[in-house]
Amino acid sequence: MQRKSFGQMVCPIARSLERVGEWWSILILRDALHGLTRFDQFQSSLGIAPNILTRRLDALVEAGLLERRRYSERPPRYEYVLTARGRDFRPVVVALFAWGNKHFAPEGASVLLVNTKTGDAVDPILVDRATGRPIKEPEYAFAAGPAASERTRRKYASANRATVPGKQDSITADGKRTKQDSITADGKRTARKRTAK
Amino acid sequence: MQRKSFGQMVCPIARSLERVGEWWSILILRDALHGLTRFDQFQSSLGIAPNILTRRLDALVEAGLLERRRYSERPPRYEYVLTARGRDFRPVVVALFAWGNKHFAPEGASVLLVNTKTGDAVDPILVDRATGRPIKEPEYAFAAGPAASERTRRKYASANRATVPGKQDSITADGKRTKQDSITADGKRTARKRTAK
Repeated sequence: MQRKSFGQMVCPIARSLERVGEWWSILILRDALHGLTRFDQFQSSLGIAPNILTRRLDALVEAGLLERRRYSERPPRYEYVLTARGRDFRPVVVALFAWGNKHFAPEGASVLLVNTKTGDAVDPILVDRATGRPIKEPEYAFAAGPAASERTRRKYASANRATVPGKQDSITADGKRTKQDSITADGKRTARKRTAK
Repeated sequence: MQRKSFGQMVCPIARSLERVGEWWSILILRDALHGLTRFDQFQSSLGIAPNILTRRLDALVEAGLLERRRYSERPPRYEYVLTARGRDFRPVVVALFAWGNKHFAPEGASVLLVNTKTGDAVDPILVDRATGRPIKEPEYAFAAGPAASERTRRKYASANRATVPGKQDSITADGKRTKQDSITADGKRTARKRTAK
């Protein structure tokens, strides 16, 4: 793998990526969240080589996302069950699902998220748990937290001049948002460019 | 890369993974969502080798997530600006962020998602856009959509016997949920195991 260890980065996104390791891991978690637990189930669902599947399952156990559990004594057989940490990965899978369905399903949806009681297809969105308001710019943005290094503080301080209204100049105030939203519709590129560092 | 092309899979999650290609791509998108646009900004943020960064940026342009735009005529200089499709990736980044902060920040949060008006830290959750209800099992589940292949239909039909209440047997009815939630707390493994196919 041609990358440094993301686990050394303080960014929680980078650290998450370190734990799920590569694409197969996300698809294994997807299947585990669908209820699959056994080696042959994952193999049949993914069409993955057994040695790679073994390695990925071991890595997910190591990272605390799956737990290996014996389900048969003779012969000894194991299954892989999501831990609380693994189940908490569901929003990432749902967000990937929604993005893929919106942008990469030209023939229509092969998979839907449904309300199991009504059968209605559901559009999942991220909201602020406390207020129920959708997580959108510029109302919400990433910022340095209490454990941030000096480098992280500087990074977010400069990033937020581009997203927090009124901190830098008038181009970043609320009015800018309209221009940024329309960037692909009407070619108003200049406004966006000026907000970048 | 030791994998087949996920783009051939009909699953929207697999297709999404095909487009973002590898971890660097997600971190580049993270930085682009923070407002970075220029090669040297990405390079300095990520500590990534220039040839790898070039390849990743080209792939993201190719996949329609970034647009390459000249910002200086002499010398010719380009920046990389998120398209609508690229901006739509934000919920995936936010979901990864929330998961990473919850599970992989033992020293405290280096990064927070904040309400930019109040400064309050925000806990992002996925809800049903129409009803505002949190996306949780067993109320919400993936199911085969109108464009699903026979294989996909079979897959979700069997997966949903484990998640949709009352479709298989009493162990999968609402009462099961409680047992599954407590799986790491009280060792009630048997109930969970029996719901797997």
